[in-house]
Amino acid sequence: MSSILVVGSLGYDTITTPLGRRENILGGSANYFSLASSIFAPVRIVGVVGEDYKSEDMALLEARSIDTQGLQKVNGETFFWEGRYEDDMNEAITVETRLNVFQDFKPELPESYKASEFVFLANIDPELQMDVLSQLSSKVFVGADTMNFWIGSKRAQLENLISKVDVLLINEGECRQLTKSNNIVHAVKSLTEMGVESVVVKRGEYGFMLYSQGQYFMLPAFPVAEVIDPTGAGDTFAGGFFGYLAGNGKRPTIEHLKEACVYGCLLASYTVQDFGVAGVARVTKSELDSRLKNYAQMVSGLPKGQFEAEMR
Amino acid sequence: MSSILVVGSLGYDTITTPLGRRENILGGSANYFSLASSIFAPVRIVGVVGEDYKSEDMALLEARSIDTQGLQKVNGETFFWEGRYEDDMNEAITVETRLNVFQDFKPELPESYKASEFVFLANIDPELQMDVLSQLSSKVFVGADTMNFWIGSKRAQLENLISKVDVLLINEGECRQLTKSNNIVHAVKSLTEMGVESVVVKRGEYGFMLYSQGQYFMLPAFPVAEVIDPTGAGDTFAGGFFGYLAGNGKRPTIEHLKEACVYGCLLASYTVQDFGVAGVARVTKSELDSRLKNYAQMVSGLPKGQFEAEMR
Repeated sequence: MSSILVVGSLGYDTITTPLGRRENILGGSANYFSLASSIFAPVRIVGVVGEDYKSEDMALLEARSIDTQGLQKVNGETFFWEGRYEDDMNEAITVETRLNVFQDFKPELPESYKASEFVFLANIDPELQMDVLSQLSSKVFVGADTMNFWIGSKRAQLENLISKVDVLLINEGECRQLTKSNNIVHAVKSLTEMGVESVVVKRGEYGFMLYSQGQYFMLPAFPVAEVIDPTGAGDTFAGGFFGYLAGNGKRPTIEHLKEACVYGCLLASYTVQDFGVAGVARVTKSELDSRLKNYAQMVSGLPKGQFEAEMR
Repeated sequence: MSSILVVGSLGYDTITTPLGRRENILGGSANYFSLASSIFAPVRIVGVVGEDYKSEDMALLEARSIDTQGLQKVNGETFFWEGRYEDDMNEAITVETRLNVFQDFKPELPESYKASEFVFLANIDPELQMDVLSQLSSKVFVGADTMNFWIGSKRAQLENLISKVDVLLINEGECRQLTKSNNIVHAVKSLTEMGVESVVVKRGEYGFMLYSQGQYFMLPAFPVAEVIDPTGAGDTFAGGFFGYLAGNGKRPTIEHLKEACVYGCLLASYTVQDFGVAGVARVTKSELDSRLKNYAQMVSGLPKGQFEAEMR
């Protein structure tokens, strides 16, 4: 088992969905990620919070033995995002973003973090993501996410970053934007041509597609009858994915990558069942195993192929 | 093995997609359906064509031993549809529909068709679909499709029909419209509450979801690098689905339904690879088996579950 390092945002969100509204609840990619990944492996977190960051929110991470030595607490207010979802729960509409202390965030790895083998660079400025990469001394497997803002404003830096990581996790809309292709088969191939070995496209309720070493692996999401709040589903996916790989410890095979996608996908299904991090924060290992069994039934049942005998 | 009866449209389509344009090519739900289903079982077709219907298009069916005794050839022009697709290949935009001889179509089953056990009522007026049902003497398994036009204009008749069939095949957008629900888990449940035992939601490139006897089964579509023309993919799915079930002959189990969905899905992937019926018309059995093997690799690789030992 290896430790996993995540660099990303910690913040407060105000979220409105067809099923309700919550103000100033805990959010941020690094929170979703580390709550999910800590189910499988020890987690180290790098990020910045303001003076208003609540001690109970810090305690939530510490209760999972998440190493928070890399969290900077600085003067000012914590990152804030307000978003809403309308009928299409697959797409968030941003109402307001206040970067606050995140504006001047410069990730600095504590000495003890520099030898991290599994690393996830959540969605932040691609130049900062590169900077983190350069601080690492013994990385084995590094992944990154990004978003429309960076694709539009820092494409060259982003493409450079993509060529330096092992896996890119990206949502489907942003995958289209980045590759200028509406066809997912073309899109994932063109991403690997930028120099990344593996790509995971996150497709909301339609699940994911992994492309690695010329192989595809894709499955739909676990069907959830009441999607309360999709915020953080992608970061939860990434957390489950990386957590599982770090839990294995070795450089992942294609089989590990496939299994990691399934855990990422299943964990995300808990996130969407409640507001904020509440869903993923309360998943137990036995629940996860039981949902996996349930899911396996939903995606198993292929025919054996009937024409082979006939052909001979 | 049982015969399968399909009632639907035969027509000529003019189609524009980002990859080209074809004028007056063969189309119609019954054509796509019967070309797909005839791979597995004998097919009987009921529909209407005009004087302009080409003998080569009739010969295409007869070469597959499709029984065309139920095809009426009447004075006037054949059904015509013009549509186009923009970037979103999952959605057709209708440019023009000329019902022509389809306007006064009244399906009449030849005596030899009345004992059909497997029956598919493709998308036509739900009152005509009901009328066909009433002509059948020994049906075992009946399915129906529908479209936005009938949901809007003949909802009561459509709901009555749904309560009388064994499976409803419907695309995702129309499923939302019919159930007034954006959540697919709710939607398929509420359809079964209308009295149909099984529902298959067709989701374009995202595949399908089957709901039957409280069980879900869902998989993504086979990924196609060049989607030339999605027209007829849904009817091809239905053809593969019903063809496989009729090929088995018995009233389907849940396992048969799952397998049938996979064949439907795979056959549809050939349809989208060319304009009109060309893709599905040239699928060979050995190709289909080989694509199934390829597909099986793309959707297999679930983790075994790792916490069970720990829990005991």
